Amino acid sequence: ISWKGSPVFASDDAKFKVKGRIQYDAGLLMAPESVSDRAKGYSNELRRLRLGAEGQLGAGFGYKLEVELSDNSVDLVDTFITYEKGKWLITLGNHNQFQSLDELIGDTTGSVMERAAFTDAFNFERRIGLSAQYKSGILLAQLGLFSDSADSLTNDEDGDENDSYSVDGRIVLAPRIGKIQLHFGASGHWRDLNRLSDEPLRYRQRPYLHTVNTRFLATPAIDATGESHYGLELAGTRGPLYWAGETHWLRTKRPGLSDPTFFGGYAEVGYFLTGETRAYKNGIFGSTKPRQAFGDGGMGALQLTARYDYLDLNDKDIVGGTQNAWILGLVWTPIEYLRFNLNYAHLRYTDAAIPAGTDRDYSANVVGWRAELDF
Amino acid sequence: ISWKGSPVFASDDAKFKVKGRIQYDAGLLMAPESVSDRAKGYSNELRRLRLGAEGQLGAGFGYKLEVELSDNSVDLVDTFITYEKGKWLITLGNHNQFQSLDELIGDTTGSVMERAAFTDAFNFERRIGLSAQYKSGILLAQLGLFSDSADSLTNDEDGDENDSYSVDGRIVLAPRIGKIQLHFGASGHWRDLNRLSDEPLRYRQRPYLHTVNTRFLATPAIDATGESHYGLELAGTRGPLYWAGETHWLRTKRPGLSDPTFFGGYAEVGYFLTGETRAYKNGIFGSTKPRQAFGDGGMGALQLTARYDYLDLNDKDIVGGTQNAWILGLVWTPIEYLRFNLNYAHLRYTDAAIPAGTDRDYSANVVGWRAELDF
Amino acid sequence: ISWKGSPVFASDDAKFKVKGRIQYDAGLLMAPESVSDRAKGYSNELRRLRLGAEGQLGAGFGYKLEVELSDNSVDLVDTFITYEKGKWLITLGNHNQFQSLDELIGDTTGSVMERAAFTDAFNFERRIGLSAQYKSGILLAQLGLFSDSADSLTNDEDGDENDSYSVDGRIVLAPRIGKIQLHFGASGHWRDLNRLSDEPLRYRQRPYLHTVNTRFLATPAIDATGESHYGLELAGTRGPLYWAGETHWLRTKRPGLSDPTFFGGYAEVGYFLTGETRAYKNGIFGSTKPRQAFGDGGMGALQLTARYDYLDLNDKDIVGGTQNAWILGLVWTPIEYLRFNLNYAHLRYTDAAIPAGTDRDYSANVVGWRAELDF
Repeated sequence: ISWKGSPVFASDDAKFKVKGRIQYDAGLLMAPESVSDRAKGYSNELRRLRLGAEGQLGAGFGYKLEVELSDNSVDLVDTFITYEKGKWLITLGNHNQFQSLDELIGDTTGSVMERAAFTDAFNFERRIGLSAQYKSGILLAQLGLFSDSADSLTNDEDGDENDSYSVDGRIVLAPRIGKIQLHFGASGHWRDLNRLSDEPLRYRQRPYLHTVNTRFLATPAIDATGESHYGLELAGTRGPLYWAGETHWLRTKRPGLSDPTFFGGYAEVGYFLTGETRAYKNGIFGSTKPRQAFGDGGMGALQLTARYDYLDLNDKDIVGGTQNAWILGLVWTPIEYLRFNLNYAHLRYTDAAIPAGTDRDYSANVVGWRAELDF
Repeated sequence: ISWKGSPVFASDDAKFKVKGRIQYDAGLLMAPESVSDRAKGYSNELRRLRLGAEGQLGAGFGYKLEVELSDNSVDLVDTFITYEKGKWLITLGNHNQFQSLDELIGDTTGSVMERAAFTDAFNFERRIGLSAQYKSGILLAQLGLFSDSADSLTNDEDGDENDSYSVDGRIVLAPRIGKIQLHFGASGHWRDLNRLSDEPLRYRQRPYLHTVNTRFLATPAIDATGESHYGLELAGTRGPLYWAGETHWLRTKRPGLSDPTFFGGYAEVGYFLTGETRAYKNGIFGSTKPRQAFGDGGMGALQLTARYDYLDLNDKDIVGGTQNAWILGLVWTPIEYLRFNLNYAHLRYTDAAIPAGTDRDYSANVVGWRAELDF
Repeated sequence: ISWKGSPVFASDDAKFKVKGRIQYDAGLLMAPESVSDRAKGYSNELRRLRLGAEGQLGAGFGYKLEVELSDNSVDLVDTFITYEKGKWLITLGNHNQFQSLDELIGDTTGSVMERAAFTDAFNFERRIGLSAQYKSGILLAQLGLFSDSADSLTNDEDGDENDSYSVDGRIVLAPRIGKIQLHFGASGHWRDLNRLSDEPLRYRQRPYLHTVNTRFLATPAIDATGESHYGLELAGTRGPLYWAGETHWLRTKRPGLSDPTFFGGYAEVGYFLTGETRAYKNGIFGSTKPRQAFGDGGMGALQLTARYDYLDLNDKDIVGGTQNAWILGLVWTPIEYLRFNLNYAHLRYTDAAIPAGTDRDYSANVVGWRAELDF
C-alpha cells in the first residue's frame, strides 16, 4: 500500500486505486450594460465531481473507470482498458483523441481555469476508440481510430445509428537540453460523420467562465459531413519558468458549399514563485508537488500564468465571431492534490453572437475562482 | 487499517474510506375513502442509495464526496473540502446550512423514519457554501454563506443565472451534568432569492411516508423575494432515555404583500430497551453501537420513540393546511451500520390540499417500514 | 487483504471489496435491403459501466451495492442486504427473481454475448424483493416475494402507486456423477400487476445485438392484469465440454380476452479449447480462470460455443413474430476478469414487426464484438 491522495494497493503485478475529484467554481461576468444576458454578474456551480477507480489486472492489462457528475447529468470520462508491453500502450474505450496539448492536460493540472477557447469551440471530447501509443526516448507517437462519445452512442437519441468515425494521430518530441525541457508536438484529425451528418454542427464558446451558459461566440448550425483539424504545439520548462503555445485549424466539410476553416491558438508563460518546476511527463504537463507543503512550515506552491488566447469562427459565409482574450491566472497548491485558482480575463469580441444594443464589437471582463481536489 | 463498516486506511495524517448507504422503504397509507388519491394502500421504493468516499489529504485538509441515487436521478449529497485547525473547521462545498437538529442528524441515525414535517415543508436541503465552525468545551458555533444546491446551480435550467444566497448560523450549548447530557440550540437563517425570485416558492409535505408523492399539505405557489427562518432546539440523554424538541418559524418575503410566517415543531421521547445510550457528538445525535451485537449471544439494540409533530402552513391569505402527527417508532440495530425501522403515525389535517369529498379536515394513518445500511 | 481483480479487505467476519465493470460492444447488422431501418450496418456503444461495492458487516449480514450506467441513464443493479445462517440465505433489496439459468448467469460469464431471446422479450429484470435460499448437498431452493424494479418504484412516473407484486421460486438439483457435473432446474413465477395494469405490456426483442434499437420481433401493446411464467433448465459440464438448454413459457392474463402464451428456449454446447472446465457454483455457471494466464507463457482461455435460440411471440390474436437464431460464440479470456468476445448469428424471422418491402418473413445476420472487464 502506497499513497497518492488515496491508498494505492499493489499485489504482484496487480494494482488498484479509488479516484475522486471535486471542482467548485464561482465567477463574475462583466459585460456592457447594453448586452441583455441574464448570466451577467455573480454565478457559481459545482464544476465537476468524479468518482471512479483505476488499476492493473496483471500481465500488462490495466483499466480506468470514471463517472463524472456535472450539469446534473452523469457522463463517462476516462473509461478504458489498456494493454502495455515494452514501448507500446494499447487503449480501448472512452478516451481523448490526442487533440491538443491543452486538451490532454488534466483539468486539475492546468495553469489557468479553463482550456484554450478552441478546445471547447471545436467540440473536443472523449470518444470511444482503439488507439496505440509508442514511446521511446524523446519520441511519443499516438494513433487511434475513434467512433463517438459514449453518450452519443447510447440507445436513446438513436445513438445506434451513429456510425461516425475518425482517425487521429499525434507526434511529440520532448528533448531535454541541460536544464531546459522542450516539447514539440503536431496532431492531425480526420472525421467522417456518416449517418450523424443528419444533425447539423455548431461551434461556440463561453466567455472563459463555465458557471455561465452565455456564448458570445457562436456559428449558426452548419450542415456538415465531416471535419478535419490539425494543430501545432510548442512548450517547455526551465526551472520554475514554463511556457506553452498552440495553433489549431479546423475545416468543416460542407457538401455543395465551400468549406470554412476556423482557427484558434494561445500562448502562455508562467512562473512558480515558490521555486517548483512544472511537472512534464508522457507528452503533457502533470501534477506539480509543492516543495514545502502548507503546514510543514511551508505555504505550498504558488504559480502565476499570463496567457493570450485567440479564437476566430469567421470564415467563408459563416460569421461566428472572434475573441481575443488576455488571461491572468494564480494557482495556490497548499498540498498535493488540492488547488485554489484565481483568474482574471479581459475578452474582446468582434461579430459577437449576442449584440450590445446594435453593436457586435465590444469587450467583457471575467473574474473566476475555483477550489479543486483530485486524487 | 481500522474498520468502520468498511476499512479505514490511514497513513501519517492522510486517511481514506469508501462510503455507501442503502435504504429500502415500504409503507401503507390509509386515508378516508372519499379522498381520491392513487397512492393509498401499499407502496415501496428504494429510498436512498449512496456511494462515495471521505478522507484526509494531510495538513488539516479533508473531504467528503458522495453521490446519491434516489427517485431515478443522481444528486449530490455531502460533497465538500474541509480545513481543520485547532478549534476551527472550515467547510467549502455542498453541505447543510445548520438548519435544525432534526435536519442535521443523519438519516440512518434518526429515531424515526422521516424527519419533522417542517424540515421538508420548508425545503431544507444541502447547498453550496463556505462555512466556519468553532468548537470549544460545551460551545459549538457555526456560521456560513451559501448560494444554492449544486443541482439548482447547473447549466441546464438556467442555473447560471441563479445568484441567490443566504447567511446561516447556529449556536449550541451542550453541558453535561452528572449522567445527563443536555443540548440547547438556536439557529437563524436569512436568504435573498435575487434572480431566483422569478420562480415562485411552494411549501408542502408528504404524509410521513416518502414512498408516496401525495401532499395533503401544500401552499399555492408564492411569489417571493426572500426567506428568513429561525429555530430553537432542546434535547438530551440520561442513560437509555433520550428526548428532543424543536420549534421553527419561516417567514416568506412577498413584495407588495404582507409576509406570511409558517410554523413547525416536534417533541419526542425515546428509550433504549437494551440499555444503550443514544450517541451525542458535535451538536447532533450520532450512530449508536449495540451493547451486544446480534449473533454474539445478543440481539442488538432496540429503541422505542414517541414523537408529536406539528406543522402549520396557514398564515395571512395563504392556506396550506395544518398537520398534527402522533408517531411511534421502533428501531432494531442488530449490528452497527445496519438498522430496521417500524413506524406508525396518526395524522390529523385541517385545510388539507386534497379534499375528502368536500371536507378538508380529516385524519390519515400510516405504517412505514425501512431496512437501512450505512458505512 | 486478498485479491480478486481488486483488493478484498477482511477483518474478523467483516469484508469489503470495490466492484467495477466495463463492457464495450460493436457490431454489424445485415438485413435485406428492402428492410428500411437506420440501424443496419455498423454500430457501437459502451454497453455497461458499473461501479459499486460488496461486503460483509459481520454476524452473517452482508450487502452488495452497484450502480450501472448504460444508455445514458443510471440504473440500479444488484443492491441488497443479505443475512446468511447455515444453509439459509435471506436477501432484501433489488435482485433477480430466479427467472432462468441464462438470466442468472452474470453478463461477463456467459458463453455468448447476449442472453437467450426470451429473457429480454419477457422483460426479465431485477426487482425489489425479499427472498430466501436454502442450499444443502445437491439441492438449491429459492423463493421470493417481489414488487417492481427500483426504477419503476421511484416518485417520478407515479411509481408510488405501483403496488404490483410477484411470487417467484426456483429449484435446482446439481448432482455430480464422476467427472460429470449435472444441473436440473425448474422455476415458476406468478405476478399481479395491480394498479400497474393501467400501463399496457409489450414483448419485443433486439436482433442479438444491443448496439441497435431495432426490434424485428414485437407484440402490440397488451392490456394485461398479470403474468405467469415457468421454465425448465438442463445443463452440465464434463471436463472442457459444457452444455445448457432451457424452455420458458409466459402467459399474459387479459381480462375479458383469452390469454396468450409465448414461448422461448435455447440449447447450447461449448468447449474450452485450452482445457479449462466451465466453473459451476450456486446453481449457475460462474467465472472461469484460465489455466495459463496470458503473458505467463500461456495464451489465456479460449472457448467456443454453438447455440440455437428460439422465440415465439405469436399466440391467440397476438402476432409478435417468431425468431430462429443460430449463434457461434468465441470467448478469449487472456487473464481472469478480462474477456474478449466475437459472435456471429444467423436469424430467421416470420411475422417480423418491421417488413422487408411487403414481406415479413426474412433473415438477417449479425456480427458482434465485445471487450469486457469485471472485478
